Amino acid sequence: MSGNTFGKLFTVTTFGESHGPALGAIVDGCPPGLPLTEADLQRDLDRRRPGSSRYTTQRREPDQVRILSGVFEGVTTGTPIGLLIENTDQRSKDYSNIKDRFRPAHADYTYHHKYGLRDYRGGGRSSARETAMRVAAGAIAKKYLAMQGIQVRGYMSQLGPIAIDFKSWDGVDDNPFFCPDPDRIAELETYMEQLRRDQDSVGAKITVVADGVPVGLGEPIFDRLDAELAHGLMSINAVKGVEIGDGFACIAQRGSEHRDEMTPDGFLSNHAGGVLGGISSGQPLIAHLALKPTSSITQSGRSIDVDGNPVEVITKGRHDPCVGIRATPIAEAMMALTLMDHLLRHRAQNADVSVATPRLS
Amino acid sequence: MSGNTFGKLFTVTTFGESHGPALGAIVDGCPPGLPLTEADLQRDLDRRRPGSSRYTTQRREPDQVRILSGVFEGVTTGTPIGLLIENTDQRSKDYSNIKDRFRPAHADYTYHHKYGLRDYRGGGRSSARETAMRVAAGAIAKKYLAMQGIQVRGYMSQLGPIAIDFKSWDGVDDNPFFCPDPDRIAELETYMEQLRRDQDSVGAKITVVADGVPVGLGEPIFDRLDAELAHGLMSINAVKGVEIGDGFACIAQRGSEHRDEMTPDGFLSNHAGGVLGGISSGQPLIAHLALKPTSSITQSGRSIDVDGNPVEVITKGRHDPCVGIRATPIAEAMMALTLMDHLLRHRAQNADVSVATPRLS
Amino acid sequence: MSGNTFGKLFTVTTFGESHGPALGAIVDGCPPGLPLTEADLQRDLDRRRPGSSRYTTQRREPDQVRILSGVFEGVTTGTPIGLLIENTDQRSKDYSNIKDRFRPAHADYTYHHKYGLRDYRGGGRSSARETAMRVAAGAIAKKYLAMQGIQVRGYMSQLGPIAIDFKSWDGVDDNPFFCPDPDRIAELETYMEQLRRDQDSVGAKITVVADGVPVGLGEPIFDRLDAELAHGLMSINAVKGVEIGDGFACIAQRGSEHRDEMTPDGFLSNHAGGVLGGISSGQPLIAHLALKPTSSITQSGRSIDVDGNPVEVITKGRHDPCVGIRATPIAEAMMALTLMDHLLRHRAQNADVSVATPRLS
Amino acid sequence: MSGNTFGKLFTVTTFGESHGPALGAIVDGCPPGLPLTEADLQRDLDRRRPGSSRYTTQRREPDQVRILSGVFEGVTTGTPIGLLIENTDQRSKDYSNIKDRFRPAHADYTYHHKYGLRDYRGGGRSSARETAMRVAAGAIAKKYLAMQGIQVRGYMSQLGPIAIDFKSWDGVDDNPFFCPDPDRIAELETYMEQLRRDQDSVGAKITVVADGVPVGLGEPIFDRLDAELAHGLMSINAVKGVEIGDGFACIAQRGSEHRDEMTPDGFLSNHAGGVLGGISSGQPLIAHLALKPTSSITQSGRSIDVDGNPVEVITKGRHDPCVGIRATPIAEAMMALTLMDHLLRHRAQNADVSVATPRLS
Repeated sequence: MSGNTFGKLFTVTTFGESHGPALGAIVDGCPPGLPLTEADLQRDLDRRRPGSSRYTTQRREPDQVRILSGVFEGVTTGTPIGLLIENTDQRSKDYSNIKDRFRPAHADYTYHHKYGLRDYRGGGRSSARETAMRVAAGAIAKKYLAMQGIQVRGYMSQLGPIAIDFKSWDGVDDNPFFCPDPDRIAELETYMEQLRRDQDSVGAKITVVADGVPVGLGEPIFDRLDAELAHGLMSINAVKGVEIGDGFACIAQRGSEHRDEMTPDGFLSNHAGGVLGGISSGQPLIAHLALKPTSSITQSGRSIDVDGNPVEVITKGRHDPCVGIRATPIAEAMMALTLMDHLLRHRAQNADVSVATPRLS
Repeated sequence: MSGNTFGKLFTVTTFGESHGPALGAIVDGCPPGLPLTEADLQRDLDRRRPGSSRYTTQRREPDQVRILSGVFEGVTTGTPIGLLIENTDQRSKDYSNIKDRFRPAHADYTYHHKYGLRDYRGGGRSSARETAMRVAAGAIAKKYLAMQGIQVRGYMSQLGPIAIDFKSWDGVDDNPFFCPDPDRIAELETYMEQLRRDQDSVGAKITVVADGVPVGLGEPIFDRLDAELAHGLMSINAVKGVEIGDGFACIAQRGSEHRDEMTPDGFLSNHAGGVLGGISSGQPLIAHLALKPTSSITQSGRSIDVDGNPVEVITKGRHDPCVGIRATPIAEAMMALTLMDHLLRHRAQNADVSVATPRLS
Repeated sequence: MSGNTFGKLFTVTTFGESHGPALGAIVDGCPPGLPLTEADLQRDLDRRRPGSSRYTTQRREPDQVRILSGVFEGVTTGTPIGLLIENTDQRSKDYSNIKDRFRPAHADYTYHHKYGLRDYRGGGRSSARETAMRVAAGAIAKKYLAMQGIQVRGYMSQLGPIAIDFKSWDGVDDNPFFCPDPDRIAELETYMEQLRRDQDSVGAKITVVADGVPVGLGEPIFDRLDAELAHGLMSINAVKGVEIGDGFACIAQRGSEHRDEMTPDGFLSNHAGGVLGGISSGQPLIAHLALKPTSSITQSGRSIDVDGNPVEVITKGRHDPCVGIRATPIAEAMMALTLMDHLLRHRAQNADVSVATPRLS
Repeated sequence: MSGNTFGKLFTVTTFGESHGPALGAIVDGCPPGLPLTEADLQRDLDRRRPGSSRYTTQRREPDQVRILSGVFEGVTTGTPIGLLIENTDQRSKDYSNIKDRFRPAHADYTYHHKYGLRDYRGGGRSSARETAMRVAAGAIAKKYLAMQGIQVRGYMSQLGPIAIDFKSWDGVDDNPFFCPDPDRIAELETYMEQLRRDQDSVGAKITVVADGVPVGLGEPIFDRLDAELAHGLMSINAVKGVEIGDGFACIAQRGSEHRDEMTPDGFLSNHAGGVLGGISSGQPLIAHLALKPTSSITQSGRSIDVDGNPVEVITKGRHDPCVGIRATPIAEAMMALTLMDHLLRHRAQNADVSVATPRLS
């Protein structure tokens, strides 16, 4: 069934396969009057773009996005915004060898059995290439949110076994890992070099933070802000876990330790990660994502073909040794889209709320 | 905005406050012909019911559910199923003292600022009491799924600092903790006694598993099965983290280690937790939840009142020292509702798929 | 599939069969702070109630509605509003004779083949009894809209062959026909008496008008205000046609005649019925509905039974000789629900619109 | 709010302005395995294309559609289908004169006040040009439905004052009016010539019919087949009225006359137009649409400018003297999209229904 739309008021619907002619999206529900240019979208697309460092796939896609509607004389009109990115660097022949076989840990097997047929080139729809459109749409949300004083940013908090403490936002965009601590970059480079020699891949952890979120976003009980954020983040390729605030660390915490006490000057801690009862508290919204290691490695793996016969599969082609490296802009996009949708949803129902909402932080 | 409906084809919409006259739900989209009685729902409601052990709140609610529509002569008719549970044991006076103040880590503060007013009695809509209706609706999904050979079960995998390895499904329902290892129950009881003496609360980890899931459930790219499951599980009160399969352990795994290889006899492992590319693989669907410690403890905590003045809050009333203890049936319900919705969604689009879908496991 | 929810932001989900224990609804998305009592709903329920005149079914239902949630200390809280009406006057035996046969022009045949089984008592879910919940939910919307200066009213504009010109709103509620011209009531009574003697039924036309609608409601291109209004009105039992403004008379009109010219003092006419390009123009919103004659008449009719054998069917039981007579409050409810939903939808996206919207009328 | 998506399971989301760079659509939820080429879509696009006769606008658009995703090796894959049509023949200067003024009966006034700004070129998003994408998406639905034995066709049943009785489907596509009676075409041509001399426009009536519809499509009570069809048809530009079956003629009918009696050989009449209780009866689905006269005429009309000053407006540019002339393929598309969505929705919930559904007709 149709599952390619995200959001309820600010909706993003996407299409496109890894090796098809183009990727596209329709952003519907964007408020009118927002100044918007293709450059606004290109900035984040470039942060995600493949081939920008030796630690990502060498497929070279300019990912030039075109705005085809919804913007007139430089500002949004309130009508749907059509976005298009042409695919340019395709080497479908790389994939002919896996036409009739399922790559281990890939979606080949499930797509084949769900739909009865599949576009096997580069994983088709299941390719992470699809995330380019999430980033393009997310950039629209990020710009609108920024005008409301809401800033969405992310960084890599762990690469394989290497945990990285947050030091500063400065320089996060100046290194290929989105590492928040310049002193750790060399260590990450060394690890990636060894990984390449091992012809293997590895997982990663990404942290996303939204500052300036007002109190009140989220629609309990099912469309809680944290639940919809988990939906958005878990929908990113390779993500296997999502935490809000302290996440799994909460299990061993005691109530006296976890509860974020309040004073007239604000909250004294943020174990909750900015969400109470599914509604934003005005504190920074904090989420963590776990990404699995890239499934495409050049080590031979056991699998079966479409007829059920045993085969050995070696995944050629050009792949990221760690999909997490490029995941930061994608995670930011999904958090921005979730917040944008909820900002509009909250506004719809609560225009009459006269109570002041002082920001405690 | 309306956020009290879960699902797209098999939808559950709920209402009800902790101390209102009743809780209710409308289950829409249930296929006709399903034999259904109130006893089918009561079984799971009783598993969740408060006051059933000394380790849960002593509020005594029979939670007797009535089916008001959608069932005729013992079977579902395809029309919406109305469910109702009257609240019987309310002590609203317990809450008058927090009428004008915000309990730390509760939804008091966010509800007050989102809506401008709130039903403060027992947390009103934000109370976990709301989950009774999830369990009632989930029971309908569980029965339908069971007839399709899909079994949804859960257990407690960690209580505070105590990790519990899965031993057997036998006896999970025979102890108040849903503990899968009878030899560990005494240890859990001792821990809970100490917790009571400490007047504190603690978090927990729940694991939910669905066996017999067919290949093909899930609607990429946004309505992936894992994404919607994360949405459903994260929407449960107190849940702060969700994992699919190996979850956060994937971060440090290598691709050669994580990938689940296949042979004609089936998968050789299940690190993925039964989902590949957002679509069920036919392996057991496995998810883990992290629940935070109960916010309601009798230790005094710093907070503010509705006017922003500093106050000390002691949460009286009858509360669960560990909300995780009763969370297992709720988690099962959300997984069942997610699978039910996706079973129907998959069926809608893929009736023409002729490819056989051999179960690999 | 689930089809029992109306609206996107202000949603109404209903359940209940004609001869089941109760009817219910959940109104989700109502803004907080709206003063609301059961009496507010009862007023419209009484206008629709059966047995209130000799020209409607003699089934006597008090239709006493209970508010089970979402209202605290007399005002809405922003959480879902649960509504319940118990069925009291049921004579199921009246229907045992049509258990295995399909009444001509009824939904018996289609329900039976769609679902494979049906609750045949009084038509089950297909009974117009279901509209009681539309009226109850609509009353909430009407009250909120009234506070925004929007008034939704309706009247009968034709009974069978008798067309009724609008004279005045005064007295519309003082006669059983919702006739807008007191001088025509005797004529309608005479017609109904003859209809009774003929043991027949007849159709009717209802006109609904909303005054005070602001400019800007409606979400092109698919969720245009007129399109959603048509959806809502056509979803009422027995409705076979919907017109906006001049409706079918537009076919023979010329552009020079139809176009509503504007001056600084307002529009010079309202052929459009208050909608331009799917968006409200600020003029009165006008819609007309055509209702078919009641299918239940005591004249014998040819039909088949569930096995396909020919049978003669005489519909006993207590029925309205003209379903249109009680349709006015229902039509008002659907227009109010549509406007309420679109008021919230417009508000969500256009909070930033600074342009003044002077009311032209 | 986002209102540019039609359908729930088979969804069509569109974008594009009259004078923007392109029009586009995403068709999500199309079952896999459907053979599909651009030629399948082009056929209907050509039937709707402007400039194809002297009785339509002379704007010359090839309306060449491209399929950008969702189709692999000639068949659909189950992933979203991206569609794109580039705009080629634009004369924006034609519209500079109405930049600051509102054309009577156009959406200029409502768009301006809803969004605070508007793309005035050719009506921007409110232009009927948008319907090209409905036709392209509808062609996909029509092809799938045809493989299920469901055929959707339409014709013009009235042009201004000239009512046209249906004679035969043969030749409907061979004349510019979609006239179902070749003997009446000369009369229509004469009327159009006079209309041109009068520098005026006129309305029209279109009839759409679906043959081969199975019993059981439609999801009461709100998503009834007739209600959703009314939604789809009323969402077409210029449509002011929708009838199902006998429509407004039902008002004066008696129950004994209207009810469609049944015999083992089928229904004896089809006053209902193929829908009973909101569910398809297996008879032909019949709907009628009323389209208003084109608002763009070269006769001067009174209006106001954006500042509220009185102005005289003459609408230049290239316009259809009767928008109804090209409306037949659009109406077919909306009926096909509605049926397609409901075919999937019915299939989702009723796969278990074992009862045979013999076609009565």
